[in-house]
Amino acid sequence: MNPYEQHVFDAIYGRRSIRAYREDREVEHEKIIKLLRAGMAAPSACNIQPWEFIVITDPEAVSRVRAGIPRYGDYNAPVIIVVCGVPEFIPWEGDAGIADCCAAIENMLIAATAMGLGSVWIGGFDTPALRELLDIPEPVVPLGVVYFGYPAERKEPRTQYLEEAVHWQTYDDERGRRPRPGSLIDPESGDLVI
Amino acid sequence: MNPYEQHVFDAIYGRRSIRAYREDREVEHEKIIKLLRAGMAAPSACNIQPWEFIVITDPEAVSRVRAGIPRYGDYNAPVIIVVCGVPEFIPWEGDAGIADCCAAIENMLIAATAMGLGSVWIGGFDTPALRELLDIPEPVVPLGVVYFGYPAERKEPRTQYLEEAVHWQTYDDERGRRPRPGSLIDPESGDLVI
Repeated sequence: MNPYEQHVFDAIYGRRSIRAYREDREVEHEKIIKLLRAGMAAPSACNIQPWEFIVITDPEAVSRVRAGIPRYGDYNAPVIIVVCGVPEFIPWEGDAGIADCCAAIENMLIAATAMGLGSVWIGGFDTPALRELLDIPEPVVPLGVVYFGYPAERKEPRTQYLEEAVHWQTYDDERGRRPRPGSLIDPESGDLVI
Repeated sequence: MNPYEQHVFDAIYGRRSIRAYREDREVEHEKIIKLLRAGMAAPSACNIQPWEFIVITDPEAVSRVRAGIPRYGDYNAPVIIVVCGVPEFIPWEGDAGIADCCAAIENMLIAATAMGLGSVWIGGFDTPALRELLDIPEPVVPLGVVYFGYPAERKEPRTQYLEEAVHWQTYDDERGRRPRPGSLIDPESGDLVI
């Protein structure tokens, strides 16, 4: 692989969900702007760019958001970016721009990795509580909450490539559905296992 | 920027929707596998990995899919990957894994860019027609169709960073909603303008 390709795969494989952050190191403002620049380089259906970003860096505000996501978001990251969809921008029905916003989030995660930052994408949160905390008005939809900071844990790069998840030419339903992949949910308690 | 960061931003900014492909150059099998490896390195809620990938390389099958997406997918790419969500893997209600699948798609697009491939993510397609063409069974949901190939057009790298799409600490609803961003839909005809 040439260095360009190697570096890009390093970032894609190196992006892991980081749940412990250094408390002695802030994220530079310039890096936050670069995260946003990466996010807004994402593809967007008909180039509508139906996204908005709420960046939370004030420590008290960060703590409040963290406290508002007790089950899946109780991590000590210094920066939180909430990505919202704006349905009124979209001229077709029933779409809050989730695909575009998810692409923007994934871009931010990969950019973070390349800048030495850790990140974790939190999809499970209480939408009304988050609206209230961040003054998000009704027509805007918070779609993803992303934590960023310098990592205080190290995880190995990886892909979870699985040949059984790949079909060639058409969907092969004959071979039977693969078992549900390794989950972070404890089958007995229903709790998240990390 | 160090070379790692520079290369990753090159790929994020260089990923543009390519709608014209070289017909004299096939995509190497090894590169297709690497696209899939990048896709399956995406984050996944509770690590459920609710995705499946249908890779279409047979020229006749590719033509049929292309003909099945006449409005938004009539491009001459030699490889099509359809990313599907498998709701039965997901232990909570009403989620086909769209966020995870979109993250996987975005990873593939960025990896493609780094390998010199062009790509375009097509979100607007006729689901029942696609099911029939590719034998996709009812419980599996096609979420995105992605075209890959060596590009026959060149587009400049870019971000569409917009300061007005960024809020700090809380959502600032006072400043008024920004106008709908430049769209690829003709306001009069409703047609896609490329």
